[in-house]
Amino acid sequence: MKAAYYIGKGKFQVGERQLPGLDPDHVRIQVAYCGICGTDNHIFNGKMDDRVRPPQIVGHECSGIVDEIGSNVQSFSIGDHVVVRPLDYCGKCDACKKGLTHICHNLKFMGVDSVGAFQNYWDVYSRTLHKLPDEVDLKTGALVEPLAVACHDVRRGKVSPGDFVTIIGGGPIGMLIAMVAKYRGAHVIITEINEERILLARELGITAINPTETSVEQYVQEQTGGAGADVVFEVSSSQTGAELMTKLPACRGRIVIVGIFSKPVLVDLHKFFWREIEMVGARVYEHEDYEEAINLINNKSIKLDSLITSVFTLDRIQEAFEKLNSKSNEMKILIQCSDV
Amino acid sequence: MKAAYYIGKGKFQVGERQLPGLDPDHVRIQVAYCGICGTDNHIFNGKMDDRVRPPQIVGHECSGIVDEIGSNVQSFSIGDHVVVRPLDYCGKCDACKKGLTHICHNLKFMGVDSVGAFQNYWDVYSRTLHKLPDEVDLKTGALVEPLAVACHDVRRGKVSPGDFVTIIGGGPIGMLIAMVAKYRGAHVIITEINEERILLARELGITAINPTETSVEQYVQEQTGGAGADVVFEVSSSQTGAELMTKLPACRGRIVIVGIFSKPVLVDLHKFFWREIEMVGARVYEHEDYEEAINLINNKSIKLDSLITSVFTLDRIQEAFEKLNSKSNEMKILIQCSDV
Repeated sequence: MKAAYYIGKGKFQVGERQLPGLDPDHVRIQVAYCGICGTDNHIFNGKMDDRVRPPQIVGHECSGIVDEIGSNVQSFSIGDHVVVRPLDYCGKCDACKKGLTHICHNLKFMGVDSVGAFQNYWDVYSRTLHKLPDEVDLKTGALVEPLAVACHDVRRGKVSPGDFVTIIGGGPIGMLIAMVAKYRGAHVIITEINEERILLARELGITAINPTETSVEQYVQEQTGGAGADVVFEVSSSQTGAELMTKLPACRGRIVIVGIFSKPVLVDLHKFFWREIEMVGARVYEHEDYEEAINLINNKSIKLDSLITSVFTLDRIQEAFEKLNSKSNEMKILIQCSDV
Repeated sequence: MKAAYYIGKGKFQVGERQLPGLDPDHVRIQVAYCGICGTDNHIFNGKMDDRVRPPQIVGHECSGIVDEIGSNVQSFSIGDHVVVRPLDYCGKCDACKKGLTHICHNLKFMGVDSVGAFQNYWDVYSRTLHKLPDEVDLKTGALVEPLAVACHDVRRGKVSPGDFVTIIGGGPIGMLIAMVAKYRGAHVIITEINEERILLARELGITAINPTETSVEQYVQEQTGGAGADVVFEVSSSQTGAELMTKLPACRGRIVIVGIFSKPVLVDLHKFFWREIEMVGARVYEHEDYEEAINLINNKSIKLDSLITSVFTLDRIQEAFEKLNSKSNEMKILIQCSDV
């Protein structure tokens, strides 16, 4: 079978791979589609060479079809459509004991810390699988993973109907957070500097403003009658975003740290004191976030089609990553990993 | 009557003051004792000249005796021992409407934004008063205000029995937080660089370590079996404290921002993401924090005597502030504002 290997900065190579015998606790899935995540792109750009070990198969936002079942697995059948929650936890650390397996001290994120989905078949623990309803097509299914991120973020932000929500950064995750928060009945605005993304947000019915043109602080003040935002999502991982995030919340408003900051940034901690602001980090997802994401898609509560801007076959994975890194306006690129 | 006026950086002047007629909603209290707060010391050092208007009477950590009652006031009697919750809120802003009058958008902090307690008599709204039980002496009563700060901080930190709590900074507020958290059944450590304060903490039965000698991160790891701290209080308002605070929490641990940071500092936001850390700001206190502080003193649950290191008469207020700013090891200095 075929697999795409990250072989070093800026380079994928598609090659043959011999599958080993199936582990009794594993399920072999024929990978249908696998989205390119920001993390995959960081890997492509050589920024995660301390975690990946080239040549390595990466990728984790996938949908697939159950192809073979390990002898200890009972809960799945061949032919089931599934998605993978790519978290391999230890089950023994303090976080796992608290039931927080998604932030396990020894978490292996599958597709980064171990082999991933950019291949025809992927062997995974059955506990990582969620069934996809028949009504959800496999292309959309590949968006369950990022949508579950957004569901987790919104849950961590305790977004309630009527809340005024501001999202700093309108990439795929920011856009999905906006969609979930809007579905929950919040008033949502996105701040984003890329004009194409602003247009896409508006097409999705979400207010989007460019912070280089409009004072976000003043806008939020006006829209909330001087109160400030109930929830702010920082998804830009930038110093500018970190400065903006503390200017927006209402008294006891919340900030959710979604962006992955590569180094410490300047933060105005006085604002936390002054308005008793709350801030929480949000990392990946829990079981219930996956179930919620699948339900939102299945109920057509959230429509994701317009976020998928390109689909490439596995053979053309190098081209896909290069396009994402060119000045194109790609949002979500899927890799079709096998003929399904 | 006599009053102490802050007349400019480094200078108090004691002078005569003619009291005006009593406002119908006010109570006139004979001020017994008033502690010197870190904020008062900032004022003394000229760092709050944008908020105070010299010549101004400052001071807010006071106890006193009801001397006269405005015609609209019913809930107090002459001779009552009282303490003042020095918050003058607007009642109209978004925060007040939510019941968060202590973080009112237009909050006037009495003794900073308006006239304070370093005088023989102080006229205040009756709504700011709490009665002191007979068993609580007026000296200790002057510590209700800072103890209420600590009660509020501990409440914001949701400290539970058995929690491992780390307090960065062992000044009066850090010490009081430690005492309240310990009373609540937490395992408490203070990190502090001043050896005298370390000794005082130890005399109070609180573990204290010097971060310049011991790795706090390693210590907390060892003490918690690798889990990390449940709650961290940042009370140092320093870049060093801001760096340390993100290294200590367990997964979903909490940081409480108590210190008043005068400028943005570098914060490792990646840690918030990685361990889903929560951070909340805590400012002053609410009604219930005052009641709790009074109860803790009245029940002798917390003994504050050893925190009072000096008492000066109002005439000698200049000397008191100068002593606090010398290399003395003062913890809490009280000003006796009248003969009671």
